[in-house]
Amino acid sequence: MPTASVPFITPDALLAHWQGHRRLTRRVIEAFPDDKLFTFSVGAMRPFGVLVKEMLTMGAPMVRGAVSGDWEAPSNRDPLPKTELLRLWDESTEQLNALWPQIPTARFLETLTAFGQYTAPLHELILYVIDNEIHHRGQGYVYLRALGIEPPAFFERS
Amino acid sequence: MPTASVPFITPDALLAHWQGHRRLTRRVIEAFPDDKLFTFSVGAMRPFGVLVKEMLTMGAPMVRGAVSGDWEAPSNRDPLPKTELLRLWDESTEQLNALWPQIPTARFLETLTAFGQYTAPLHELILYVIDNEIHHRGQGYVYLRALGIEPPAFFERS
Repeated sequence: MPTASVPFITPDALLAHWQGHRRLTRRVIEAFPDDKLFTFSVGAMRPFGVLVKEMLTMGAPMVRGAVSGDWEAPSNRDPLPKTELLRLWDESTEQLNALWPQIPTARFLETLTAFGQYTAPLHELILYVIDNEIHHRGQGYVYLRALGIEPPAFFERS
Repeated sequence: MPTASVPFITPDALLAHWQGHRRLTRRVIEAFPDDKLFTFSVGAMRPFGVLVKEMLTMGAPMVRGAVSGDWEAPSNRDPLPKTELLRLWDESTEQLNALWPQIPTARFLETLTAFGQYTAPLHELILYVIDNEIHHRGQGYVYLRALGIEPPAFFERS
């Protein structure tokens, strides 16, 4: 098999990995008190609810763009009740599961321009979205600790 | 091509992706004042220097184990001067570059037991190491902001 076609990880396993991270992020959202989600932060950074809304503009919209070439994404960062944010999160979970199998497998190694401005191989664009979620969730862990709340276990993805 | 052998990403591209993250983590280490690396934290969490030493016990040792079955890893978390921590980081960078091509490509999809206790497909074990670095580096970003220091740009990996 030529090196270019040897997998480090397959598309199916990568989606499962991502959804595991998204289950953990959902638990971090749940751990925040409703009145702190869009108000509390450390070091004048953005509140966790705003970061979650950013994640929502990146995940399903990236995969939808990779499938269809439609690069629309919501830009709204207004506060929402936690139940509503969780509803949007779950909606996004279903969208990802529905869209992912529609990506032609060869496309993951192809270079695309996402949202009219980010040009990279599709696997890099998708890893950026996942890494951004992990990065900002790590920030959320510090906010929770600063609030005296024990965050969910990092290794637990079920 | 059977689905199992379609790559989301190839081993070479994954190492490049990881080393990009490691360059960013190196810049975060550099951004910390020497006297804050092993002393400062928020919410009674571990200082960033301790988290970096954890990263050092996971990265090259994981890849060495995958190559050789030798699962030794340092457990020392004692404070070090920043220059010494950066030296260990750079040493680890070279070790990763030397060890990575020695992993037989089929092994990434095989299930291993790392460090005598973590059983998962090798790609999951390696992604865990990378994700743990991103997670704790996100924590480091909050520490820097709390110290009034602007962290390096998240998207910059060169």
